[in-house]
Order: sequence, then structure tokens, then C-alpha cells
Amino acid sequence: MTRAATLAEIAQEAGVSAPTVSKVLNGRADVAPATRERVEELLRRHGYRRRGGARTSPLLDLVFHELESSWATEVIRGVENVAREEGLSIVLSESAGRLTPGQSWVDGVLARRPTGVLLVLSGLDRSQQEQLAGRGIPFVVMDPAGDPGQGVPAVGTTNWDGGLAATRHLVDLGHRRIGLIGGPGRMMCSRARADGYRAALDIAGIAYDPALVREGDFHHEAGHRIGLELLSLPDRPTAVFAGNDLQALGLYEAARELGLRIPEDLSVVGFDDLPLARWVGPPLTTVRQPLTEMAEVAARLVIDLARGTRPGALRVDLQHRPTEEAVPNG
Amino acid sequence: MTRAATLAEIAQEAGVSAPTVSKVLNGRADVAPATRERVEELLRRHGYRRRGGARTSPLLDLVFHELESSWATEVIRGVENVAREEGLSIVLSESAGRLTPGQSWVDGVLARRPTGVLLVLSGLDRSQQEQLAGRGIPFVVMDPAGDPGQGVPAVGTTNWDGGLAATRHLVDLGHRRIGLIGGPGRMMCSRARADGYRAALDIAGIAYDPALVREGDFHHEAGHRIGLELLSLPDRPTAVFAGNDLQALGLYEAARELGLRIPEDLSVVGFDDLPLARWVGPPLTTVRQPLTEMAEVAARLVIDLARGTRPGALRVDLQHRPTEEAVPNG
Repeated sequence: MTRAATLAEIAQEAGVSAPTVSKVLNGRADVAPATRERVEELLRRHGYRRRGGARTSPLLDLVFHELESSWATEVIRGVENVAREEGLSIVLSESAGRLTPGQSWVDGVLARRPTGVLLVLSGLDRSQQEQLAGRGIPFVVMDPAGDPGQGVPAVGTTNWDGGLAATRHLVDLGHRRIGLIGGPGRMMCSRARADGYRAALDIAGIAYDPALVREGDFHHEAGHRIGLELLSLPDRPTAVFAGNDLQALGLYEAARELGLRIPEDLSVVGFDDLPLARWVGPPLTTVRQPLTEMAEVAARLVIDLARGTRPGALRVDLQHRPTEEAVPNG
Repeated sequence: MTRAATLAEIAQEAGVSAPTVSKVLNGRADVAPATRERVEELLRRHGYRRRGGARTSPLLDLVFHELESSWATEVIRGVENVAREEGLSIVLSESAGRLTPGQSWVDGVLARRPTGVLLVLSGLDRSQQEQLAGRGIPFVVMDPAGDPGQGVPAVGTTNWDGGLAATRHLVDLGHRRIGLIGGPGRMMCSRARADGYRAALDIAGIAYDPALVREGDFHHEAGHRIGLELLSLPDRPTAVFAGNDLQALGLYEAARELGLRIPEDLSVVGFDDLPLARWVGPPLTTVRQPLTEMAEVAARLVIDLARGTRPGALRVDLQHRPTEEAVPNG
């Protein structure tokens, strides 16, 4: 078959009526599971694409893998800014910590037919991507945690450059023993920041010491626990790039418990520039990740895709802001 | 007319067809504004109520007046916990700082017909309440900022008791000059906390000093600005009940700038117990407002109303947790 199959042809091949195929396309529950599976398989095999003018709702699906931190609030604000302008409402989901949402979420999306889908730090597997594509529902991944895959529209930040800038700032202050509390290795952003850290050391002629490098999970508790470990080493680091702001605040707590003063005894750099980075004492030096702007760009990208506008680029990386602009804590 | 009008009767009285009335009920855009207004007026006048079995979407509308702080994240998590269990998706809106959402939001709700509506710190005016009631869409107000009105289902916390407990804690530490940075006076929760503060002083035989009491807006900046004012008074307070956690952190910053140590030179109590209250140094003593649990209770209440289950109470206040349970900063 060289041309795309029509709905009627798929119905015939599946041995069902055209309205049944339509029900599957619309995520309706009143189709027998076996029938549904057969139809889905044929839609996939024929690369079925719903023709333009599919009825969609004025909704924008926004999926987080977790809603734990004020990180999420920054992103929601950006999406909300664009959604309001465009007359769209946000449908918010949390994939319960998993980096791929479950099938019940996909079923919900097919049934409510949003204008588009925005995934934050999570992605879709191949089958989910095909199900959405078949219904003409575009999606964009923000700050992809894994490799989002060839051709998947994505918005990120310059994580490698940010890791480099954070570490360089500490090198420039004269530090030689610089620790790293990284994010989870399964997330690309963690790897990129850690590689930037390593490059900065290399350029400065400082040997990479694995004893000073630990993997966290981007939460406060990890910063605290790993901070206690690093700061209790016989030859402890005098500076730490904490991977993100929450881990930096955990590290602050560890330093307090050990009687180390910031910045006199320990220099700390974070990543994100959440509002609370400015509220702690002393204010945290941090690499600004423009979360709200990233969310706005991602929302505009998915709306462009929904309208059939060809976006300038399918992959956008917003520039981090250098640490030098932040209030330095030394 | 003693019995409720039917849709057909309303159509006849308005001089339109029954499908047109149905369109208005469903928030469809393809009705002339004048017609729509006439039909809405008749629906209101006759107290029209859609009969049971109205088709609703598996959506739960959640409205914030602003999404600024990590406060919102705590609430979203609670609603998400219940929504996931019930197979509902959350539609998130922000009313751009106003305490009543705009008409475009109401139009969206009528069109998407959610199972229910949850309003956080905002409310609906009489006409909006009637429009939702006419479509059989229940709503619940969480932590009402104003008086939610007779019979409006609402979930709150014991703000007066919390304000009393916060201030008593400071009295028990031996303080006599205790300041208050309150929330906005238009919000009932601010007034209740301020009255609790005043009652604690009264019980302790401490005269109320208006010079020590200021109105903030629950944001960090207000805590900082008013903190500088209070702490610069010739006879400055030795302790401050900061109204909420964000204002307390602003006050921390003001104290740092003036070279005052916490708790040696100044005692501070917050309200909310956001995660970040435990991350600052020293950890903030605060009155715990069970935001996530409140959101869960509110979500269950609106779902009960949607199912026609008669809830035990239309107004629920969850108990704050005493400051004594928190890590005291003195």
C-alpha cells in the first residue's frame, strides 16, 4: 500500500463498521478490548492520520512526572500565560513519578481530544506517540529526561553550558576541590550538567576525583544526605556544584549541622534559580534555568503544530543565564 | 409558576427553539449574544435545574486566584491524589489575581461540563453560581478568601485557632512586644488569624499596640518590606507572627539585613508549614495548615455532590497542627 488507508478501508480489513473505527479513534469505552486492539494495530500498521479539521477541545494537556517542587509552579505559570491568551484550558496530570504516563492517561487524552499535549520531564513510548499522531494530536516534550527520540519536538535549556558555567564560577573563586551532587543519571539534563562540570575542571587543569562526585535525585533530602557525606570526607571539598537548587538547600542544611559557614567555609552553586534561592541566607548563587519562558515556548510550539504551522525548529534550547548575574555567595 | 419550568417552556417563552436553549446550557458559542442573554435570564428566573443524568466529562475544574507560590503545589497534589483514584483529570485555571473568575472561564466550564468545580481562595458571584447550578455542576470553595455565602460548600482550616496558637507560643517564650504581619484584609483567613493574635495577647494581659500590626499580601516581598519597618521601630518587637510562611521568610531576610539573629534577637512564627519552612536556617517555627489534606477533602466533597450523595457537612474546617510539633526556632 503506497497511499494512506482510509477509515473505511481499515474498518473493512478489521471486519468492523466504520463507526467502530471512529469510536476507537475517539477513545470511547464502548468497544470490546479485542476489537479495539485489532483496530489500533491496523491504524498503526497503515500509519493512519486523521485528516485536518479533526474536532479538538480547547484544552491543552500538561503532564508532569511529579508535582513535588515549586519547579512545577514555574512551568505551570508559563503554560498558563500562553493558554489564557489562546483561550485554552490546561488539563493537568501527574504520571506518579514514572517517566512515561500510563495507558489510562492516553485513553483520557483520546476521549477529550485536546488541542495538544505538553510533557514535562517525561516522554511517550513509540505506541503512545503513534496513537496521538493517528488522532492528529501534537505533543512537545519539555526538558526531556531521556533521549526524546528522533523528530520529537522538544524544548530544553543549555544544561551542559550551565554545568560548565557553575563549575567555572567556583574555579574562578580559587577552589580546587570542587564536589558535584548530580541529578539522576537516567535524565539527560543530569548527564549534561555533570559533563559540563567535568569539562570545566579539565579546562582548569584540575584532576577529576570520583570521590567528590555523587548521584542525587534532585530533591532536598538527597542534597542533605550526600552533603553530609561529602563534607565529612577527610579531605572535604571546599566548594560544591549542587546540581539544582533543592539539592543546594539540602547541602546548606548539612553545612549548618556540621558548623560550616557559607560562604566562608564552603561555596555552593545551584541550578534553576527558583524564587526560594533568593530567600535563603545567604542567597544562593545559581544558574538560572528560564523555566517559565521554556514553558511558554513549548506551549507556543505545540499550538503551532496543532494549527499546522511549520515551526522554525522542532528542538529549542533556551540559554541559561550566567551565575555572574546572580547574587554571589562567594 | 410553582413547579420547575421545562426546557421546552423556557424555549417557548424566549421565542427560540429547544435546541437553542440546549446550546446555551452547553455553553456553545453559536448563539447570538442577545438570545443567549434572554435565555440565561429565563433560566435564572425559573430556577431551571438540569435533570439528573446530565452528561458530564471526567474532568474536575480547579481554579486558583494566583499560582505564585509552592502553596499551589501542595493543593494541586491533594486534588490530584483524589482525581487519579476517581479517574478524573484536572483542568487548571488561574483567575489572574482576581477573587472571582471571569466570564470566559464560566463559558469554558459550561462547554466542557466538568464533574465539578473547586475554587481555591476565590469564589463565584451569584450569577455564576446560578449558571453552574442550572447545569448541575457542583462547586466547592477551599479556604474561602471572602465570605463564601450562605449554603456554599467550603473547606477551610482553623485560622483563628492557628493565629491564637502562633501568638501564644511567642507569649510562652516570654515575649511582650509581639508584632503581626497580617494577610490582606479582604481575605477571611487573614482576619481570623489576626483576631486569634489579638485574643492571645488579651488573654496574656498584653495591651494591643496598633504600631506593631501591619497588613501584608502573603508574599515574600511584603514580609521583607514590613519586616524592615517593624524591626526599625525605636521600640521594636522582639517577636513577630508573620501571617504565613512566605512573609516569615521575607522577615528572615529583613532581620539578616539589620544584623539581627534568629532566634537570639528575634522570634518568628509562620503559618502554612510549606516544605521550604524546614529548609531555611534556622528552620521556621510554623503553624501547620494541612493544605494537601484540605484539597483532598474538598475534592471528595465536590465529587459527592456530583453523585448526588448528601455530604455529612457542607462546611468542613480541618484542624491546624500546634506550633509545638514543629521544630522551634525559639
